[in-house]
Amino acid sequence: MRDVAIIGVGMQKWGELWKKSLRDIFVESALLAIEDAGADRIDSMYVGCMTSGLFVGQEHIGSLLADYLGVASIPATRIETACASGGAAFRLGFMEVASGMSDIVLVGGVEKMTDVGGDEATYALGTAADQEYEGFNGVTFPGLYAMIARRHMHEFGTTPEQLAQVAVKNHENGSKNPMAQFPMRITVEQVLNSVMVADPLHILDCSPITDGAAAAILCPVEMAKKISQKPLVKIIGSGQATDTIALHDREDLAYLKSTVRAAEMAYKMAVKTPENIDLAEVHDCFTIAEICITEALDFVEKGKGGPFVESGATSIGGKIPVNTSGGLKSKGHPVGATGVAQVIEIVHQLRGEAGNRQVKDAKIGLIQNMGGSGGSAVVHILEGE
Amino acid sequence: MRDVAIIGVGMQKWGELWKKSLRDIFVESALLAIEDAGADRIDSMYVGCMTSGLFVGQEHIGSLLADYLGVASIPATRIETACASGGAAFRLGFMEVASGMSDIVLVGGVEKMTDVGGDEATYALGTAADQEYEGFNGVTFPGLYAMIARRHMHEFGTTPEQLAQVAVKNHENGSKNPMAQFPMRITVEQVLNSVMVADPLHILDCSPITDGAAAAILCPVEMAKKISQKPLVKIIGSGQATDTIALHDREDLAYLKSTVRAAEMAYKMAVKTPENIDLAEVHDCFTIAEICITEALDFVEKGKGGPFVESGATSIGGKIPVNTSGGLKSKGHPVGATGVAQVIEIVHQLRGEAGNRQVKDAKIGLIQNMGGSGGSAVVHILEGE
Repeated sequence: MRDVAIIGVGMQKWGELWKKSLRDIFVESALLAIEDAGADRIDSMYVGCMTSGLFVGQEHIGSLLADYLGVASIPATRIETACASGGAAFRLGFMEVASGMSDIVLVGGVEKMTDVGGDEATYALGTAADQEYEGFNGVTFPGLYAMIARRHMHEFGTTPEQLAQVAVKNHENGSKNPMAQFPMRITVEQVLNSVMVADPLHILDCSPITDGAAAAILCPVEMAKKISQKPLVKIIGSGQATDTIALHDREDLAYLKSTVRAAEMAYKMAVKTPENIDLAEVHDCFTIAEICITEALDFVEKGKGGPFVESGATSIGGKIPVNTSGGLKSKGHPVGATGVAQVIEIVHQLRGEAGNRQVKDAKIGLIQNMGGSGGSAVVHILEGE
Repeated sequence: MRDVAIIGVGMQKWGELWKKSLRDIFVESALLAIEDAGADRIDSMYVGCMTSGLFVGQEHIGSLLADYLGVASIPATRIETACASGGAAFRLGFMEVASGMSDIVLVGGVEKMTDVGGDEATYALGTAADQEYEGFNGVTFPGLYAMIARRHMHEFGTTPEQLAQVAVKNHENGSKNPMAQFPMRITVEQVLNSVMVADPLHILDCSPITDGAAAAILCPVEMAKKISQKPLVKIIGSGQATDTIALHDREDLAYLKSTVRAAEMAYKMAVKTPENIDLAEVHDCFTIAEICITEALDFVEKGKGGPFVESGATSIGGKIPVNTSGGLKSKGHPVGATGVAQVIEIVHQLRGEAGNRQVKDAKIGLIQNMGGSGGSAVVHILEGE
């Protein structure tokens, strides 16, 4: 397999983009990535998108988006693994370039979520859970993650303040990210006093509903050195795994096995250990998720994720900064686009382009993207020059 | 890239499978494929599915189906390119094995279409067209293909009888396929006297709504020789392409450019020409589609597809048998599963297992799977021993 580089990235400011359609926001981000890459052609594309059928009544978006990007003719495929769709699309782009099948591959992600009402959005997102069991019994995603949180609190003494600290840290980081949907700083008190969605998760423990897209351009490292003037960023590890789709089928509710497995694959391919990772973007769809993920990635031992975030270890300047972009929590969470936007943040950090949220001497970054309540996970490791 | 073989295939009899759920029919077909392959493990899986969100309220089916197949842990990704989803999933399975990323990959396709009413099914299928332009103006797929048929008739003098002949031939073939949803023989008169759906397309010019799944197991050729006792079937060519998603944006309505391009890629990789192809499974979602496809694949010159089918050239025993399985028309068309079921027919033919629909001395078979009104196309070429 060939070594693969990321030579271009692009996204717009995320939010409630009512004046733009799904195709508009995708093309906007793809053109930014192409410009950043300096590429004069695209050979193939993958687009991560969870549920454009339910959100905007449009499937077949590979063809649609290639067409509206002006490249109708190339292979274009939509990839879906719920909220990990962007990460899975990125993995396939990596595989296509690594295999030698294509040279320049565009990987995008997109979701247009605010064209429907809140109830419809909750239903659409719920289709990432086991509909015949979990959905039928009325549980939605805040409820599923609340059960994970309850278990973590029961078993390890994790506190609501520690959960809130994840949100506080990520909004602090997001306040420095011009692309973030909710760039305001918040306090632990504000999180704890915000409306309860599913006990113990308040509204400020939850990531928002967002319209947004993100794109990245991949090519072989040898070609990157010729095309791109930017600092080289290589993909050195890739892993993907599944777990039972339903929470009730797991031995341990607070243990994200799919992330553990995907990380093992990625660490092995990269020949790296958690100690080698300088920073990470992880799937903080709810504050408890980030705590469980830092444990699953082996950044901290199992059960200690709460004190870990409280200690400042995952803040910028800490031992291993997590979600310097603001994460899903502050940057926003257009589900299919999230995994690709995580790549964008790590690329900016490894290139030294992250402005006032820059992590000093960042050389190796990890990306963890997750679907459902952990039924799917994708992990990548990137290395800068 | 490594050479890749197909060592196992499986599907159930398709139809209105009201007593079985999406997960049931997928697992059923996957287990048949695993048994046929003699494989003792699966390293990764891809599932083609167009719109499980709209048909059964369930996305994230990679995780769901890996879980219910008993392999929760492996990478599992759902692929969507409308009715070409199965073909695109097959291409990714091929790429994954060829690249060396995984050894044994399961490629499946599934669609559960009869849990909703006819209007809802028509809407769900319509999401493969450009919803903001085609859908908004009220056109559905029979209407789009009727426009293609009208143009072909206008330009080349193609007749309703020639269209009907596609259906007659495919039902004749389907009558010999125990998996076919509608295995009855029909006559040209029956087609022409059946209810008009969108002039000139009668109901018997249209493929049906179907529940069904299909699966295939891929591995490197070297491994296949050790694991499998069956005749070797290799994937020697793969191509995928797009065209404008909307019909009105094309210079020539009756020219399926995405199929032309995907076929060029596949012929080139396989180092074959149309003359080398012994038989083909193609995407006859409507009778006119098969006529245009035989032209796009260069089996016959442009405009001559009507006389070609009328002459018997595409019947079993003819110059190049097309849709020996019965095609989408008689076998059924559970959209996401179709591309994988096409592979199954070619594998059975190349192994000499096709019973009373066997094509004599079949060595090289082509598969063409299409999405929307031709916005996407995937072509593969298989070679038997």
